[in-house]
Amino acid sequence: MTEHLVVIGADAAGMSAASQARRRRGADDLRITAFERGHFSSYSACGIPYWVGGQVADRDSLIARTPEEHRARGIDLRMRTEVTRIDLDRRRVHSRDVDTGESSWTGFDQLVIATGAEPLRPDDLPGFNAPGVHGVQTLDDGAALLATLDRECHRAVVVGGGYIGVEMAEAMVQRGLTVTMVHRSPEPMSTLDPDMGRLVREAMTGMGIEVVSGAEAREVRLGPDGHPRAVVTTAGEYPADVVVLGLGVRPRTALARAAGLPLGESGGLRTDAEMRVPGVDGVWAGGDCVEVLNRVSGRHQHIALGTHANKHGLVIGTNIGGGKASFPGVVGTAVSKVCSLEIARTGLLEREATAAGLDWTAAVIESTSRAGYYPGAAPMTVKMLAEQGTGRLLGLQIVGREGAAKRVDIGAVALTAGMTVDQVVSLDLGYAPPFSPVWDPVQVAARKIASRAASA
Amino acid sequence: MTEHLVVIGADAAGMSAASQARRRRGADDLRITAFERGHFSSYSACGIPYWVGGQVADRDSLIARTPEEHRARGIDLRMRTEVTRIDLDRRRVHSRDVDTGESSWTGFDQLVIATGAEPLRPDDLPGFNAPGVHGVQTLDDGAALLATLDRECHRAVVVGGGYIGVEMAEAMVQRGLTVTMVHRSPEPMSTLDPDMGRLVREAMTGMGIEVVSGAEAREVRLGPDGHPRAVVTTAGEYPADVVVLGLGVRPRTALARAAGLPLGESGGLRTDAEMRVPGVDGVWAGGDCVEVLNRVSGRHQHIALGTHANKHGLVIGTNIGGGKASFPGVVGTAVSKVCSLEIARTGLLEREATAAGLDWTAAVIESTSRAGYYPGAAPMTVKMLAEQGTGRLLGLQIVGREGAAKRVDIGAVALTAGMTVDQVVSLDLGYAPPFSPVWDPVQVAARKIASRAASA
Repeated sequence: MTEHLVVIGADAAGMSAASQARRRRGADDLRITAFERGHFSSYSACGIPYWVGGQVADRDSLIARTPEEHRARGIDLRMRTEVTRIDLDRRRVHSRDVDTGESSWTGFDQLVIATGAEPLRPDDLPGFNAPGVHGVQTLDDGAALLATLDRECHRAVVVGGGYIGVEMAEAMVQRGLTVTMVHRSPEPMSTLDPDMGRLVREAMTGMGIEVVSGAEAREVRLGPDGHPRAVVTTAGEYPADVVVLGLGVRPRTALARAAGLPLGESGGLRTDAEMRVPGVDGVWAGGDCVEVLNRVSGRHQHIALGTHANKHGLVIGTNIGGGKASFPGVVGTAVSKVCSLEIARTGLLEREATAAGLDWTAAVIESTSRAGYYPGAAPMTVKMLAEQGTGRLLGLQIVGREGAAKRVDIGAVALTAGMTVDQVVSLDLGYAPPFSPVWDPVQVAARKIASRAASA
Repeated sequence: MTEHLVVIGADAAGMSAASQARRRRGADDLRITAFERGHFSSYSACGIPYWVGGQVADRDSLIARTPEEHRARGIDLRMRTEVTRIDLDRRRVHSRDVDTGESSWTGFDQLVIATGAEPLRPDDLPGFNAPGVHGVQTLDDGAALLATLDRECHRAVVVGGGYIGVEMAEAMVQRGLTVTMVHRSPEPMSTLDPDMGRLVREAMTGMGIEVVSGAEAREVRLGPDGHPRAVVTTAGEYPADVVVLGLGVRPRTALARAAGLPLGESGGLRTDAEMRVPGVDGVWAGGDCVEVLNRVSGRHQHIALGTHANKHGLVIGTNIGGGKASFPGVVGTAVSKVCSLEIARTGLLEREATAAGLDWTAAVIESTSRAGYYPGAAPMTVKMLAEQGTGRLLGLQIVGREGAAKRVDIGAVALTAGMTVDQVVSLDLGYAPPFSPVWDPVQVAARKIASRAASA
């Protein structure tokens, strides 16, 4: 008998799951229906800042697979169709055509919830709903922002100093605007420790970006045309023709919550390692709407990243397809870029290590991306955290230029393996003068911390 | 009572050992004497190709620490002094001043043998001893080659297609010479599988380097001035004003052999994990004169690399200094560059996996260094080997452009941890469009091989 798989959300997690299930089970065996309320399927939201910044000329190049391509592979993808209710008792979903308003019920045997995340918007503050105030979560958001930028825009204020804020600050610089970034924390990139975030602020300031730290936006002051003139903050008022929001996201789980599915403290759906939603047979969830296990802290958290979403989709699709796969959790890796500055982290920050009840120590070193004498050798700051007594690696943060960010993978793999900093010192990493000093910067940090961390 | 540490060889391993021991034990507690037959201490031999190529303008920038700097730290460094005999019974070494011929005996409590490697030279073939035929093992070699290049040189023939040959081919291109590289194997870079070496050959050919594979040099034909005119090979004759040798190296262990110390099959000194030479108290060895354990194959091999030498020195110096350190072995990581091409490997090649008695499978994939839509995304070919049945990762090879080589570190850490390819697929690696596709190329390869490797 043919099973019916229903997928809610046609981006990374949902369509990876659908595609992988289809690869393993033919249409006779598995019927697949996917619902997407937006205009686009399987696109790189992570690429939006570069499209807006002009490095990526063409919106369509952000689309990995169009609805037509999915349909050609035997997936009944219904665009602009919003699922409004999940009925777990009768195993069916209710959907509504966004344009026509027509609605219907669709039964399922297997259900994949991949509803993604939604940007945090301070909609209760005056002016934040005006035209010219833009989130950058979807391709539609990006198109709207580009339409605003086609007007006469000279000054941009970016609200929020996380990776989206930082990437959007770069995008505005790329477009020739004068850019102010306003954010709440003492230093930008609160995904880093403040001493590393300070390096990001200094570099951004050096690029001509005005960084206003420790400030909260209160109002977007509008002109007579209803468009922004300035952003009013607790630290003063900053002129703005366009306002970009990078305040982070939260899991979009209203639908799941209404169906009575289990949510974690972060508001994300809980799943087991196979990406099943516990307590209900044949219900799966993945991507930005779930929370994931952090293998270093042992805690669950919400991390919206396309790379996790793709892995979730692969795991779900493999399992629905009759295989066996699991997602063992994350170690907290994230990389980003602002102009020529590369920013990376994995594992735990100081505050995260403390919150996890760990007795930690930290070391910071300066090194270079290549042998010091090799042309183009660029400075790099590396911070490492280790557990006192055991010497277990806990975290790695890197801020530098070319060649800095992806070095964090060394730490990501070492954290996954539960290595000590002594073991990191001994690693057989790639060395040649164009690529690294004879001790890789990550190992220089490990050497510094190794003796200290070994003694309790 | 003051102990006396004698070090033979003042480059990476020897002087790292001396410096680390000195850091831990003052001059009252440990006297340190080091002998070096050459003109330089603690320099980057790996940097010589870039000095010759002109990317590094200044010889002295390759010197990490001068003899004077070592002496200022309380190390009695005797330059141009060759140790000619090790007398283990009476615990003393015999040394000779290279310039004056004066000789003497020096007693030791602890002895570090760090005599390095010597280049393979076909000195029995006609013409290979002529001026204008250059090895590139030492700074003196580099200076001699540069002196030749100051003559009117238009054509270079590089003999040998390993990483030194490839790097020297680039150096000659950088200097504007017409370059032919002649080597014995079917493809250059026999540290890669031939299918990956082919990519190196094609790229080098595309850069205008003539690559002659499967050929052996027979003679350097000399002109009336005694300088090269051509290199005669089994595949024909190639005009040459200068000849560069990149035929590899062997451990320089004549001294150790004469003293009756244990050598492995590779001719390198055997050591335990603490870098002690077994059977004799207080004798240590490290760097290019020892053989190391390959943790993937379980076999010992000779690998001349500055990064290992520095680690050996740190381990030896820590242990002599009263600490506890060990060198757990290598996984066979090596990276190199020819012009804009990056070349990397770790773990085992096909033939090495077969020689180790492993039942392996391989996958090759094409991916890009950045998200496909991001400017500068460059193609990258990744080959992965895994063990049949267990899915254990066995090896990783990468050939590509910017951002390719250091990705091999992912494999190096995963091999050290004994991960399976399934575990590699799940790794939380850094992702952002400027740095990686949403699946890192290494994970794309792991995905391809994962299902295959899992079934015996």
